[in-house]
Formats: sequence, C-alpha cells, structure tokens
Amino acid sequence: MSRVFNFSAGPAVLPEPVLRQAAEEMLDWQGSGMSVMEMSHRGKEFVGIAAQAEQDLRDLLAVPDNYKVLFLQGGATGQFAAVPLNLLGDNGRADYLDTGSWSKKAIAEARGHGEVNVAAEGGSGDPMSIPAPDAWRLDPQAAYVHYCANETITGVEFHDIPETGEVPLVSDMSSTILSRPLDVSRFGVIYAGAQKNFGPAGLTLVIVREDLLGRARPGTPAIWDWARQAEADSMLNTPATYSWYIAGLVFQWLKREGGLEAMAEHNRRKAEKLYAAIDGSDFYRNPVDPACRSWMNVPFVLADSSLDGDFLAEASAAGLKTLKGHRSVGGMRASLYNAMPEAGVDALIDFMQDFERRRG
Amino acid sequence: MSRVFNFSAGPAVLPEPVLRQAAEEMLDWQGSGMSVMEMSHRGKEFVGIAAQAEQDLRDLLAVPDNYKVLFLQGGATGQFAAVPLNLLGDNGRADYLDTGSWSKKAIAEARGHGEVNVAAEGGSGDPMSIPAPDAWRLDPQAAYVHYCANETITGVEFHDIPETGEVPLVSDMSSTILSRPLDVSRFGVIYAGAQKNFGPAGLTLVIVREDLLGRARPGTPAIWDWARQAEADSMLNTPATYSWYIAGLVFQWLKREGGLEAMAEHNRRKAEKLYAAIDGSDFYRNPVDPACRSWMNVPFVLADSSLDGDFLAEASAAGLKTLKGHRSVGGMRASLYNAMPEAGVDALIDFMQDFERRRG
Repeated sequence: MSRVFNFSAGPAVLPEPVLRQAAEEMLDWQGSGMSVMEMSHRGKEFVGIAAQAEQDLRDLLAVPDNYKVLFLQGGATGQFAAVPLNLLGDNGRADYLDTGSWSKKAIAEARGHGEVNVAAEGGSGDPMSIPAPDAWRLDPQAAYVHYCANETITGVEFHDIPETGEVPLVSDMSSTILSRPLDVSRFGVIYAGAQKNFGPAGLTLVIVREDLLGRARPGTPAIWDWARQAEADSMLNTPATYSWYIAGLVFQWLKREGGLEAMAEHNRRKAEKLYAAIDGSDFYRNPVDPACRSWMNVPFVLADSSLDGDFLAEASAAGLKTLKGHRSVGGMRASLYNAMPEAGVDALIDFMQDFERRRG
Repeated sequence: MSRVFNFSAGPAVLPEPVLRQAAEEMLDWQGSGMSVMEMSHRGKEFVGIAAQAEQDLRDLLAVPDNYKVLFLQGGATGQFAAVPLNLLGDNGRADYLDTGSWSKKAIAEARGHGEVNVAAEGGSGDPMSIPAPDAWRLDPQAAYVHYCANETITGVEFHDIPETGEVPLVSDMSSTILSRPLDVSRFGVIYAGAQKNFGPAGLTLVIVREDLLGRARPGTPAIWDWARQAEADSMLNTPATYSWYIAGLVFQWLKREGGLEAMAEHNRRKAEKLYAAIDGSDFYRNPVDPACRSWMNVPFVLADSSLDGDFLAEASAAGLKTLKGHRSVGGMRASLYNAMPEAGVDALIDFMQDFERRRG
C-alpha cells in the first residue's frame, strides 16, 4: 500500500490513524460483534459513540452551553434551504454577503423561500477581494446575515468574523470549520458539510443558538427542523451513523494532535509556505488579495496555461493528486485541510519548483 | 473477533464479505492511494464506482430504461417531503394508504405540502391486516397514490402491488427493497433508505419514471429536486460517496449470491421457519394476519410479557442481538434482511424453544 498526497477540495484527505482504526473496527467494534455501520442508532453502543463525538466537538470548539449541536444530512446545500426555512418566518428578509460561488448558491436557494438582500458583493476582480465592512448595505431589520466563511473554489476567506450587532450571524463553514479556534458565541448558526475537515460526505454539522430554535416555517421538512432535531438528539430520523462515528474519530485525533490551537499553527505554516513559493515565482500566481487568502484552498495558475495538462499529469505521477482547479475557474487548486501533512505541502513545493526549472 | 447475529431493524446487518472488502480497501482503494471516503466525487475513480453501483442495481431490479436511479441523502423521512414537493404541483391532491407508523409519518409530512386523502386505514386491530383493495377510497384525480410496502415496526407487508390505474404509484420500500424481484414498471416512484437492505444510513435510493420529472414546485430544496438531481447524475451537491460505495459492494454481493430470485428463496425460507416456530407455540405469538406478514420484520410477543426482559438478556448473552421490539409497540422483533444468514434464524429458533422449555 502506498498512500498519496491528496489535495482534493472535498471529499478530502482524512487522518491516516482514523482510517486505520476504522478498518480495524469494521467487522467488530470494540467487542460488540458488529460494525458501527450495522448498529441500531437507538442501541447503547451507537448512542454512546454519538454522545462522545458531540462532547469532543464541544470541547474542541468550546461551544457555549446555550448552543445545540446537530448531526444532520443533506450537506451545506441542504442547509441553504434549511436556514431560511428555520429563520425567515413568514415575512422575514435576510442579508447575504456574496463572495463567490458558494455564496451565490446559498442566495439562489434562499430566494426560493423569501426575500434576500445581497448586502455586499466581492470575490471577483483581480485580485479577488472581500469588500470592506463599511461598504456593506446591512438591513438592521434582517432576520439574519449569511456569509460563506471560506469560498472553496476561489480560495477567498474571511479572517475576521463580520460584526452584525443584534442580527444573528449565520455562516457556511464547510471548508474551514475546525481549522483553527473559533468564537462560537459570535454566531447564531454555524453549519458545515463534513467532507472537507472532519469526515465523510453526507454528514452535516449544525451549531445553533437555542433562542433561534422553534421558528421554523410550516412545511419545513422534518429532518431539517432544527428544533425538532435538537429535541430528538439529531435522531428524529435515522442519522448518518457511520459518518457520525468517523467524525468522532477525527475529533479524537484533533484532540490528540493538540486541539485547534495546534491545528491553526499547522495550517498557517502550510499555507504560508505555499503562498510564499507562489509569490516568489513569476511562473505561478495566486489571484487573491493577500488579506483574504484562504488557509484551506490555495488556487494558482501557471503563467502559460498551455502547460496545465503537463503539470497535472506529472504531479499525479509524483503522487500529488487532485490538484486540478474547479471546472468553473480552471488552473490548479491545492486544498490543505487539517489532515494534509506538512510533508505533502513540502512535496508539492518541491515539485512546483522542479517543474518551473524544467519548463519555465 | 466474534460476530453476533444482529436482528436490528435498521441500521442492520451487512454481508460479511462486504465489510471485509471495505476494511481491506479502507486506506487504499485498488491502488489509488486513497480511501473511497477521501475521493473527490468528480474524480474518475469515484465516478466509476458510482456508475457501476447504478448499473448493478439496474441489473438486479431490471429497472426499465425510462426510469432514473438517484442516490440521494436525507432518508425516507426526507422523501416524505420530497414526494409531495416533486409531484403535487400547486393544487394537487394525493391518496395515501395508512397501514402503520411509517405510513402515518409520510402522511403527516405530506400534509405540510398539500391536500392528502387517506384512502384506506389498516395495520391496526388484532390481528393486524391490510384492508381489501375494493374498500380503498381512491381518487381518480389524485396526483399519486402512496403506500409503505413494508411497515418495519409492526411487520405488516403488502405481498401484491396495489393497482392504481393511470394514477402513479409511489412506494416507500425502505425495509423491503431488494428482498425479492420487483416489477418496477408498475411504479411511478420507489424510494428507500439504504440502512436496512443495502448499505449505511444516510444514503437514499429514488427510482423515478422519467415522465414524472420536472414537476417540482418552486421552493423544492435543490437536493431533492429529482429532475435536477437526475440531470446531474445525483451530484448536484456532494453525494454520500462512501455509503454509495458500500451500497455498490452490496449490489455486487447480491449478484454473486444469485440475484433477487435467490434472495427471495433465502428470505422466504427464513421467514417461514420463524413464523412456523411462533405459530407452533402458545408461548410466542405474532399479531399479524398471515396474508400480510412481513418477510423482513417479524414482531412477536411472549404470552407472559413479564419475561420480556429475561428473554432479551438471555438472547443477547447467546449472541442474538437487537431483538427488542420498537418502543411504540414493545415485545420482540427479529429483522431478517438479506444479510441475515439462515443460521441466524436457526439459532434464534433454537434459543426460543429452549427458553420456552425452561420458562414456559
């Protein structure tokens, strides 16, 4: 067996110790004689796994007691609908910051459920940037303000939490959650698909402040009614049990690695190295304003795009996989989630410099 | 390692060869250097896995070409909302057959989205039964007729497909799909959560006749808009990739085992044995009319319910797990999905007879 360095934007690399443990326990979880995949979600074994995962997540993010933690299904795209259904009420309006593709998808879905005000537009131009907060057209009567903390496709990331006063702040954190410490108390709702920083696709984390529960509009699908799911410990319907278990193993790995402070150092170091290598070359270029460059997703282009195909083929042959940029923007993208070791970034930089020497 | 006989109603036992293969491939799928869990859903490896799983399912069920097969998220409970959202239009009415708990949940959710006519009520009384079709109050103008093919909690199963003329028939087959051959052409829509007969919880199969696509109401969450998902090969958003892969391994196992004809024989034999043991005793009792007894879920009660606790504890000690009946009905329940070997049923019957000798 030879593991590669997998720079996929998601589903993405997972910690090898997590995969090893999952493989070892696949047929018999801790003497139960069953795979976690086979366990009733109501049985004491799985209830214990689920509760431990929630507690570990609460510990890692220091989630305040007045927040519920839900493990749901449907991905962030599901929550694009669930957010307005749970928060807009019958006549509410919501503010959205538009900083890229995922913001736009959230906005399009929310428009199916109510009135949306795009309070700021960014994440385009060259370099791409996020408009300054004093230019945002926020509505003090909005039911909430929504933003995407990290745009996975273009690598545009908020390094500060937006200030929205009394209006609840809602964030899609799919591609940045758990990459560093976070002040959860600044948010009304945080949601994230698991498949980038903490588990398999199909599991969706929702962290919601308790005073925002119970506002769901009639017709909200039961599985996304946060209040009903909170009441049922995320088991109103059968949850994605195996993915929840894998997420729990990732949370335990994060704790062993030193928690989110350690992860922040690890991620900052990887990102700074790669951006420095790109900025130190005329052959490679990152099109994002340094003030909002993502730690998690680093897109870059070659000065001569006719070399893209060769770059990707040779990188792949060198064990550096899934570096192709999103089809909507082209070029390359290296995703550097928690589970990407620093050795992977070093190997990528070595390859890039070698490729430039040979083909630049 | 010692595997138990797991009679859970779902999530449920999976074929041991599937679990072994999943464990072996966990860190390195077929030389890719990645777990399937880590693969981009857009990469050629996963696209191949997904397409193979769909083809194998189509082969097993002989799905006609004018049906789309979707691999979605959110479980059957999600589809309880998705069905009316996709099929009711603005002023449609739907007929529902109510034969138990899951029918009632589907009805409650549908009422959040339109007008529901309960065309027949059954699955209660003693013995529980399904009303004869000539007593159903079907509306020839209904947008569809919905029924739950197998009520997992009470073990009430339709052994014939309802006749609804030109009105599309929609079925929740979560706990019976793939247990025997099925004439898919009789249906407008079939849906099923994976966690009983073919995979991990969190994956949801939808088989839909093409002429029923494109009717989704505005505001239908994108991930459940069948037409959009069909257009995107179930990848409008990131699908539950690992669960899709496990389902694919189960489909390959089913083919190796002889397909659904062989599975029908295997399941019929297991169920007949267990019902015969129950009927041959005054100590045990199954409360369902023999005409609609489930092959998949066999509930039974003890004549003296004060022995329930001892029965369950001793069964568990004997390696016969998860036999407790659903909390809403009590008693016991043995679920006999495809992956439950006949040896498990034999061991259960031996235990039951021994328990009766000792305690009856």
